Order: sequence, then C-alpha cells, then structure tokens
Amino acid sequence: MSGTTYKFEGWLAHDASAAEGKMTWGEFEPKPWEETDIDIKVTHCGICGSDLHTLRSGWGPTIYPCCVGHEIVGIAVRVGSQAVGEIKVGDRVGVGAQSDSCQNRTGTKCAACAAGMENYCQVKHVGTYNGRYMNGGKSYGGYATYNRAPSRFVVKIPDAIASAEAAPMLCGGITTYTPLKHYGAGPGKAVGIIGLGGLGHFGVMWASALGADKVVVVSRSRGKAADAAKMGATDFIATGEDEGWAKKHAATLDIIICTVSSADMPLQEYMSLLRFDGTFVQVGAPEDGLPGFLPWDILYRRLKLTGSMIGSPNGIREMLQLAAEKNVKPWVTEVPMKDANKAILEMEAGVPRYRYTLVNEEQPTRAGL
Amino acid sequence: MSGTTYKFEGWLAHDASAAEGKMTWGEFEPKPWEETDIDIKVTHCGICGSDLHTLRSGWGPTIYPCCVGHEIVGIAVRVGSQAVGEIKVGDRVGVGAQSDSCQNRTGTKCAACAAGMENYCQVKHVGTYNGRYMNGGKSYGGYATYNRAPSRFVVKIPDAIASAEAAPMLCGGITTYTPLKHYGAGPGKAVGIIGLGGLGHFGVMWASALGADKVVVVSRSRGKAADAAKMGATDFIATGEDEGWAKKHAATLDIIICTVSSADMPLQEYMSLLRFDGTFVQVGAPEDGLPGFLPWDILYRRLKLTGSMIGSPNGIREMLQLAAEKNVKPWVTEVPMKDANKAILEMEAGVPRYRYTLVNEEQPTRAGL
Repeated sequence: MSGTTYKFEGWLAHDASAAEGKMTWGEFEPKPWEETDIDIKVTHCGICGSDLHTLRSGWGPTIYPCCVGHEIVGIAVRVGSQAVGEIKVGDRVGVGAQSDSCQNRTGTKCAACAAGMENYCQVKHVGTYNGRYMNGGKSYGGYATYNRAPSRFVVKIPDAIASAEAAPMLCGGITTYTPLKHYGAGPGKAVGIIGLGGLGHFGVMWASALGADKVVVVSRSRGKAADAAKMGATDFIATGEDEGWAKKHAATLDIIICTVSSADMPLQEYMSLLRFDGTFVQVGAPEDGLPGFLPWDILYRRLKLTGSMIGSPNGIREMLQLAAEKNVKPWVTEVPMKDANKAILEMEAGVPRYRYTLVNEEQPTRAGL
Repeated sequence: MSGTTYKFEGWLAHDASAAEGKMTWGEFEPKPWEETDIDIKVTHCGICGSDLHTLRSGWGPTIYPCCVGHEIVGIAVRVGSQAVGEIKVGDRVGVGAQSDSCQNRTGTKCAACAAGMENYCQVKHVGTYNGRYMNGGKSYGGYATYNRAPSRFVVKIPDAIASAEAAPMLCGGITTYTPLKHYGAGPGKAVGIIGLGGLGHFGVMWASALGADKVVVVSRSRGKAADAAKMGATDFIATGEDEGWAKKHAATLDIIICTVSSADMPLQEYMSLLRFDGTFVQVGAPEDGLPGFLPWDILYRRLKLTGSMIGSPNGIREMLQLAAEKNVKPWVTEVPMKDANKAILEMEAGVPRYRYTLVNEEQPTRAGL
C-alpha cells in the first residue's frame, strides 16, 4: 500500500479494548509521501503512558485503527529530496511524540512555530500517532516495522547513547527536560519531582545533570528511595509515611515537576513546598482533572501553576547532547516487539523500573504473527 | 494612651458580628513609637473587600479589637528622625494594605525584601491592620482619626490626585496594577478583567492607561457594559448571556486578572480564553478556594495560573505617577466616616459603583459618637 519495497506493519488498536492487551498485528498505510519526509526502519520504540490513554480513548475519541508508540528510534531508509536536518540514509534517528506542526504553512499566524517552539503549535499539532497530516494522511506510531515522519521532527541520535536508552528520552525524557530547562533548574535551585515513575525518573536525572543544588523526590512511600538516590536525588519525601511533611518542607523548593496523572493528589500541600516565585509544572495529564485548592500560597508567594508539553525538535537535540555529555542513563528494560500486548499491561500496572523499550529483533518473521 | 497630643480613635470590631455593621467607635493604642515612624492625621480611607473578610474572621481568626481600613490618605503630623521617603510634616501621604516587612532585620534572609518586593516578604509581613509589628505593637487601620505607620510604607500623594481618589488606589488599585505591569500589559497585549467590582474597575483603567490593545471585561451580565466602556474597556463578555462565549473567545487574551472572590466560577472556561504563554492572575481570595479544572489548556498552551498580592511601596509610587500622568479617575463615592457601619453593609451587598471612600470631615465631634 505504501508504494515502497518495505511494508508498514504494526500493533493495531481497533477499539478501546486494545488497552486490555488486545492490539492485533497488521498492515497500515502511512501518510502519502512528501519530499520533506523520512522513512525510518524502527529498531526500538519506548512505551509511554500516553499510549495507554490513547488506546482506551481516555483523552477523547481515538481514530481507530491506531498504532501507538511515540518514542521511536531506528535507521533512516529513505530521505526526501527536500528533507531538513542533514539526515542521510543509514543514519540512526529518532522521532518523539510530535511529528508535525503548522510551521506557518496554513495562513494562520503561529507564534509558537515562528519561535521554534513547535511543540506549542496551536494551529496544526500532529501527534506521531492518532493524528492527521496536512496532506490528509493519518499518523501511525512506532509499535511497528517502519515509520514515516516529516524530517523537521526527526533527530539524529548521538553515538554515545544506545538506541534502547534514547527511545524513552524522546517523550518521557523531553517532557521533564523542557520545563526544567525553561524554569532554570541548575546551580542555586532546589527541584522537586513528584512521582517516581517513567517521567519522574527522568526528571531526577535531568535536574541532577543540570546541576541543581537539591533534587527532592516526593512519593507516597519510601519504597523507591534507594532508586531515587542512585538517580541523583538528594532528598526524599514520603507523603504517606512522613508525618507533617508539608509543614516540615514548606517553602523549600524553586521548581516542582508533577508527574502525577490522577486528580487524587494533595495539590495544596504540593504547592506549599514552593518558595517565593516558585513554579509548579504539571506534566501528567489526569483524565479527571486537577483538584481545587486554596489560593493563599499562590497569592502570598506569587507561585505559578503551569503545564508543559513535550519539547521542540531542537529541545530534543539539546537534551540528547546533555545526556551524551553527562552520561545520563535511563533505567530501561528491553522487551521484544512481539510481547507488546503483555508489556502495555505491565506498564498500566506500574511494573517497569522505570521504562520499557520494545525492540524489533527480526522484522520479517513478525508478519506472520 | 499614645503619648501624643492627639487621640487614636476609630471604628473597632470586637468580634465577628462587627461585619454586620456593629463596629463601635473607640480609642486604641497604636504601635509604640519608633523614630522610623510617621503619624498621619487620617482625612480619607477607602473601604476594601478585605475589611469585610477581616471583620468577620473570614480569612482566619482576627485579633480583636481590630480597626480595619488600609487605603489611608491623610496629613503627616509627626515624622520620626530616622524616617525614610523625604516626607515632611504637613505632606499629604498614604498607606496601603501593608505597613511593615522584615527588611532583613530578623536574621532570616528575605529575597523579596532585598529585591524591593516587600509585598512578598515571607518573614514578617505586617498588614496595616490586624498585624503585629516587630516591636510588639498591634497595627490598627484607617477607619480612624490617626494612623501610625513605618515610614518605609508611607508614600506621598501627587498633587494631581484628589485624596478621595488616591485612597482606593492604595489597595484596590495596586492589587490590579502590580500584575498588569509585571506581566507586561501594554501595546500588543490583550487583557481580560474578570469581574467589574472595585478591583476590576481599576484593572480596566490601568490596562487602558498602560496602552493594552484590547481590554475585555468578563462579567455575568451585560449590566455594567456601559460603565466598562467608559472606563476604557474595548470588549465585554457576559458569561450568563452570551451563548458559547468560551469557545467564541478561546485563545484571544494574553493576561487575565481574575477579581472573583468565590469558588463558584468557571475557571476552566476562563483559562481557555488565554492564548499560548498566557497568564491567569488570581487577585481575589475566595475563602472557599479555587475550583478544580482539566489541565489540557495549561499543558497545550503553557498557561500560567498565578496570584498576585498588593504591591511594594515603590510599585505604589509608580502607579500613582501613572494615574497622575494619564488622568486615571477611579469611580468613588465619598461617605462620611460616621456612616462606616452602613457603608460596609452596602459594600458587602455590592452597592458601590465602584468604590467607597470614608471621609473624616471634622474629627473632634466624632469622639462623642
């Protein structure tokens, strides 16, 4: 169907039951080729919480069939004549959660694209799966053999970073890197990371790599405290175990990254940990919303509650550079692509410590699955 | 009691029933004199929503007896030998909602005071009433004959501004001016003001005076639309009357100042009016908190939800200068000081269009009330 010698096949969701481990392997039609595109032979694809939300239509109706996966690493096998980014066939490349934006091609003025913040494009933000390109094609993700993506959203992977480790950086990594960088995490700053899951473990490592004075993990129990310390955390608050934690640690942090993806969180107490001019960045997206809170702290201390959304292609390049330089190593378990259904169930159950990367070991045999 | 030839007398609250119009006139003891202080013969005092909250212990227990009023204008009658601000006896001066801060005199490092943002002092923020000075004295507000305040928090009133008009600027005015200035309201920016009461009417006038391209009032009904236009509003959204208002005006504003002081507000829809990188500033302080909301807009558009707290003495000076230059005239009704009890009930009922200033017409006769 794709007009290529290789087939685009992957794990497809046909309805919300796919989230229960019922994705089925099948062929899909990538977006119609444009000379600005790149085809990637997928070698690795991270499993992201967004995949689960989308499989079950948790963030609104999914356009089935859908192939999820937006932490894609592989080899460029076809590069359009007008591709940007100096990528050549054979290069090891990656695509994150976004694969297109308006780039001011629609006639509507887009300040975000003009400023190189394509991740905040308000006109035509195309997700790497479950999206629709300007040429009408649908976007399909990386639980697959091949991926086709506009070159502007394809980045080279530095030699120093293994593919299985680079993959989860492309969404999980950049989601926490972007706000930490934007709000100045570094020397002189105290950073809090709420929730030590896939996102949180990246948050701790980036804050540490960026040189923050304090990196404080906030979690319900102390169960992951040893892991947190290995990742670079300097302190640990167990909200379910440390009596009076909010009062004890009040006004001690400058930046908080909240990875919690549930409305059932003590937002008021979390915010109270921030000092004057501090920033609370929500990166988890609870399907049921954020809870209400008393506004005193935000008034008295000029606190900001904000959100952050993945990162731009240039932000991803910068993050990969930091990872290469500082030898940031995500905690990744490699899982064969054929076990994707089992892996998403384990992801939902919170099993990974702290991220799964699906690996295409030998693609041709998979067609018969 | 005060060791002066003049008496400190005012309307005193002895318990929460004072908010029902049951303040009683009586003498009070000002803070023990320090050579950094200034005594002011009160000629005018604005009525602020905070007065009501405090009279009824709505923001936590009030230290009765309490004399409210923190929009004080009058004549300096005694100036300490170490007073700052170049104020002389006879000058027309004002004091806003804050009358002291730590100024790094306690040994605890205060970044806010060091940066001239005394309003965000986290160590010793003393309110003009219901507060406690470092020397142990209590602070009493301006529903009174005289006020004693540390000179650092006393500002001169420019000749161009009438006392009755200057008074409400000192809290109501600065509360909206500070965030508008901080977040860059001016040419090229679209500003929304939610709620057209005492605070909101200042917000509209400042945004207009600062040169914002658009000044949009958001109110339940269209009842105040004509007033809004006279104040400088360019647009008006009536949320109770304009079908589909949130969708129609989505992503059109850069800065929103929310003066609503109740949890019963459509926060989600309000936030949706902001465009990429927009800022929602809560200045009203609902006793029952802010409602929860879905985080999509703050994630997708990097919106900030924040608060703002009055302003610094230098901020007040800057605001007064702008008011003098741009001829900003608040809508003020003058009310004799003797009618304070009636006036606070009308304030609670939302009668003022848009601010009341109490006027001390002839003090000596009042002692016998």
